[in-house]
Amino acid sequence: MTSEAAPVGIGVIGLGRGFVLMLPAFRNDPRVKLVAACAPRQSSRTAFQYEFGGNTYEDADSLCADPAVEIVYVATPHQLHCEHVIAAAMAGKHVLVDKPLAVTLDHADRMIAACRDAGVHLLVGPSHSFDAPVRIAGELIEAGELGKVRMINAFNYTDFLYRPRRPEELDTGKGGGVLFSQGVHQIDIVRLLAGGLGETVTALTGNWDPARPTEGAYSALVSFAGGAFASLTYSGYAHFDSDEWMGWTGELGAEKDPQTYGDARRKLAAARSADEEIRLKSARTYGSGDMPKPATRHEHFGPIIVSLDHADLRLTPEGVHVYGDTRREFLPAPPLRTPRTEVIDAVVGAARDETPPAQTGAWGRASLEICLAILESAKSRSTVTLKHQTGI
Amino acid sequence: MTSEAAPVGIGVIGLGRGFVLMLPAFRNDPRVKLVAACAPRQSSRTAFQYEFGGNTYEDADSLCADPAVEIVYVATPHQLHCEHVIAAAMAGKHVLVDKPLAVTLDHADRMIAACRDAGVHLLVGPSHSFDAPVRIAGELIEAGELGKVRMINAFNYTDFLYRPRRPEELDTGKGGGVLFSQGVHQIDIVRLLAGGLGETVTALTGNWDPARPTEGAYSALVSFAGGAFASLTYSGYAHFDSDEWMGWTGELGAEKDPQTYGDARRKLAAARSADEEIRLKSARTYGSGDMPKPATRHEHFGPIIVSLDHADLRLTPEGVHVYGDTRREFLPAPPLRTPRTEVIDAVVGAARDETPPAQTGAWGRASLEICLAILESAKSRSTVTLKHQTGI
Repeated sequence: MTSEAAPVGIGVIGLGRGFVLMLPAFRNDPRVKLVAACAPRQSSRTAFQYEFGGNTYEDADSLCADPAVEIVYVATPHQLHCEHVIAAAMAGKHVLVDKPLAVTLDHADRMIAACRDAGVHLLVGPSHSFDAPVRIAGELIEAGELGKVRMINAFNYTDFLYRPRRPEELDTGKGGGVLFSQGVHQIDIVRLLAGGLGETVTALTGNWDPARPTEGAYSALVSFAGGAFASLTYSGYAHFDSDEWMGWTGELGAEKDPQTYGDARRKLAAARSADEEIRLKSARTYGSGDMPKPATRHEHFGPIIVSLDHADLRLTPEGVHVYGDTRREFLPAPPLRTPRTEVIDAVVGAARDETPPAQTGAWGRASLEICLAILESAKSRSTVTLKHQTGI
Repeated sequence: MTSEAAPVGIGVIGLGRGFVLMLPAFRNDPRVKLVAACAPRQSSRTAFQYEFGGNTYEDADSLCADPAVEIVYVATPHQLHCEHVIAAAMAGKHVLVDKPLAVTLDHADRMIAACRDAGVHLLVGPSHSFDAPVRIAGELIEAGELGKVRMINAFNYTDFLYRPRRPEELDTGKGGGVLFSQGVHQIDIVRLLAGGLGETVTALTGNWDPARPTEGAYSALVSFAGGAFASLTYSGYAHFDSDEWMGWTGELGAEKDPQTYGDARRKLAAARSADEEIRLKSARTYGSGDMPKPATRHEHFGPIIVSLDHADLRLTPEGVHVYGDTRREFLPAPPLRTPRTEVIDAVVGAARDETPPAQTGAWGRASLEICLAILESAKSRSTVTLKHQTGI
């Protein structure tokens, strides 16, 4: 009881935007404690030491070897995940790795094998599939009273492509574009609600702005084992904002001011060079001051409508609308206590050898496979058959 | 000037639900006059004579021969369109035929050929592609300042499948199910906004209620010449009602009361036999008293978001939201004067030999081709290449 109740010691590799977005969870949840960090930027390391007092490192291996670290949170750019996850596994540490697990299936396989061989848990998160309303919808589906999941309609319109970006974030071959960073959330949620086992993907992608030459949009039709199918649409081109249909709640659960329309494009237009854009991007890393507004509702990833035999479910940042055969009701999610509680649940579960969540390495590989299938289908103008899917 | 200003004499074949929905337009627009009707039901013919005083017939040929009839409005069940359109053409009359043009391409071809040979106009309508907000969006696109159309997301969640139906309306082979009656609207609108020339269709359909054994839902991915693509999703299973995102305006432009949730299913459950359901359906025909609420806004067919290079357009029953690169604006549609003015414009244009609208027979065949392609793609689990598409 005493040792179980001690906070789980987390070592972080990468103090960029991903870490910043996990900070409210780490700061507020007494079940975890940040004990070490690794980052190339001195200012970030200093800020970490100042706030958390742990050890900081310039190289990942040293962090992984730190005995205070029970689980390593890999929050580095996508293309570095493989190297850092394997380093953690080699040191015998459990791993939480930011979505997407990787940007190639080969990397995914190597990461999964390394963790399996080392006997450590590999969790992929945070991801919006952890959001409380998704969990509520999943439990309703699981209960079976509403019949089978038949169709899912998921869409999201954001300004993703016009937020400040490093050059590789606009280079699909290096994991850039909306599929790996954004689409994977939608895929994760839809897979979780449809049972996980995708069968085929047919998709078209949009790469419409020569100044941001990567996929900024897509529409995909995905079929699942059991007969369900899903339509997934995404645009990161910063026009219509579908948060309008989520009660003006932003992706991260904070209230959104519709009057800031066009801000992303305007700020970016003011940055006249790639260097200036990188400086803007750096201002969004840890220790740089540009922190997101605090969440007051649950996070979300755009409107999602799940059609079952006897009801449609519609997810909102506050819960789930259940539109039944003859009556409708709203199932509120529990009030937000600390942000991303569900991700911390998974971290604690992994470190304490409890049941891991659905979002394991194999799960993350299956979601990555659909990201890649969307790109491949759009390029080849054909339907892609999936081979690496995992159920719930 | 005098003869042009005289109202166009319309003869109607079929006094069912389609006619009922056109009535407010016919009654209120001085440019047209109902002069004759043909219907198998005596009560409908009597009601017509009582209200309009014209000639009524039991057979279509006699109506078509009536010299007062300048244009024949074919509002019979889908599977009878071919016979009635050809009868009108043989009599040398222009034709307005309810969507869908037909339920087979062979019928469509014969209707188009008959009208061409007779030198008469063949118009397919009413259809929601005539709705004023669609026209406004089309004009914005046509103007070119917003760049190219890149992606369209259209969806609609209704209670279509649970409204009272004749048996053939639940039999796909006879033109039943949501594709021919509902999907064709969505396809018409999307084609109009994307330039008309569909290239490929990949789709999955839902046939989920054994008591209503026809397609009640679908998701389709359609690619267009020029590179645009569209995602079309529809459910007629009476759960979530997407009119919630259209300001609680119903498809026909009337205000909707969210408190009537579940009414369609409840009323249907109260009808214990197919015969009773047919009686309910009959109560929705002309002369039977069950008239729709009057429209106060423009008609619509669910949320539609059009992504262009420099803006997203979102259609509502009141106009078009233009979400531009750095600012947004709302373009209101003109206030509703008389309902379906745009359909009457087309009727008058055809009868007076002006330019026909986009929605000709060839246009209707192209939309029908996509309905059929959605069914075929879902059945064969493959992508269907389109061959009969027409531009705007």
